[in-house]
Amino acid sequence: MIDVVILGNGNVAVQLAKAIAKSPVCHLIQVYSRSIPNPFFTKNNMDITHHISTLKDASLYIIAISDDAISSFSEQLHLKNKLVVHTSGSVAMSDLNCQANKGVFYPLQSISKQKEISFKNIPICLEATQSKDLELLTKVAKSISDNVYYIDSEQRKSLHVAAVFVNNFTNHLYKIANDICDAHHVDFNILKPLITETVKKIEHLAPQDVQTGPAIREDRNTINEHLKLLTKHQQNIYNLLTDSIIKHKIQ
Amino acid sequence: MIDVVILGNGNVAVQLAKAIAKSPVCHLIQVYSRSIPNPFFTKNNMDITHHISTLKDASLYIIAISDDAISSFSEQLHLKNKLVVHTSGSVAMSDLNCQANKGVFYPLQSISKQKEISFKNIPICLEATQSKDLELLTKVAKSISDNVYYIDSEQRKSLHVAAVFVNNFTNHLYKIANDICDAHHVDFNILKPLITETVKKIEHLAPQDVQTGPAIREDRNTINEHLKLLTKHQQNIYNLLTDSIIKHKIQ
Repeated sequence: MIDVVILGNGNVAVQLAKAIAKSPVCHLIQVYSRSIPNPFFTKNNMDITHHISTLKDASLYIIAISDDAISSFSEQLHLKNKLVVHTSGSVAMSDLNCQANKGVFYPLQSISKQKEISFKNIPICLEATQSKDLELLTKVAKSISDNVYYIDSEQRKSLHVAAVFVNNFTNHLYKIANDICDAHHVDFNILKPLITETVKKIEHLAPQDVQTGPAIREDRNTINEHLKLLTKHQQNIYNLLTDSIIKHKIQ
Repeated sequence: MIDVVILGNGNVAVQLAKAIAKSPVCHLIQVYSRSIPNPFFTKNNMDITHHISTLKDASLYIIAISDDAISSFSEQLHLKNKLVVHTSGSVAMSDLNCQANKGVFYPLQSISKQKEISFKNIPICLEATQSKDLELLTKVAKSISDNVYYIDSEQRKSLHVAAVFVNNFTNHLYKIANDICDAHHVDFNILKPLITETVKKIEHLAPQDVQTGPAIREDRNTINEHLKLLTKHQQNIYNLLTDSIIKHKIQ
């Protein structure tokens, strides 16, 4: 069994702890939490510590705290020759500021409190300085997910910004569509099959090959009619994205 | 049985013809095509006409042609006391320029050549001037889809622009993410579980309640790091959507 310590108390720490606790190859031996531990940890009688000095001896230390804090937090760790990884998409592996062996264990998913998730389909992007560490991370990752990738720090950064486009920005477009529906007393649920279909289309086809709508057709009449129904702020977004579709049209 | 004539030869006409042909309450008695008929029509030995003057007597005429052409095309129809509907999201019912009874039969879906679709889950938005016509449209719609709605012309226009946000613009964001991945030699497929999860989250929760990412956290460090990885054009979209998320944050 691989002894694992998770350091953190937020959504990623909790979801990861749940997955690691169930992994047939791991033993979650301790959780570090600076503040009041998440109820999941206490309910499951986990070994919780509030002090770095009392960290147990483990094969893998997973830091799952906010991106900004990783560098300074890791400085306090004295885990020479141990494997320490973080779980961030936007922080470089070299930002781990300790003498341990370094790695990254990045679950590419938007993990929030509102929704329970299963790690099975979540891609886990791995990186490590030493090949034996990468092997260990692979074993852990494959025990909780079917999608394991090797991604270096530069690639991971680009993946993280791409994820902002497909997740954060897409969700914001859903919010705008919801606002438009509310303003005109239409049920936003009517749009849900279309939202699902939009995703299904790119399962096997490239997004640029399935682009539809007035922008790609350069249908100015419809575009102008649409703009009349929008607020100034919605118009700005509509115009920029319409222009972008037209500009990047495959001729 | 309800005798139906479909007028049109494009994607919507063909997909609708396929669904109507299978409907237990409809009889697709004729298809009107100005140009060379779609292979589906000829393969299935459909009664095809190229002349409006030879349209058969039917209970329902469905115009499924491009939005711009609906008004002028309908002018040529002499179908007094017959029910004539169009299938467009952006054209008002009153734009049907004929003496017939008018209605709208709008399947809210992005229908393209590349992908076979099933009408079962596609919302069909209905409108008619007369209640008996709305009844007939309901019967036809319910025979091919489980999601039938009554939506007036104003509501339909707002639904159509909202659909552009959730479908056309979202797909364009996928394309940009794909471009970012290509530029940094990362497999775009890694993002697909996240794309699916983004949609699943809004099945039962409002989009504004599940917004995540650096914008909603106003995490300027990450935002600045992201901008460094983008082209000028991608930066414009990133900035506008980031500002929009921050501005519309629920306090």
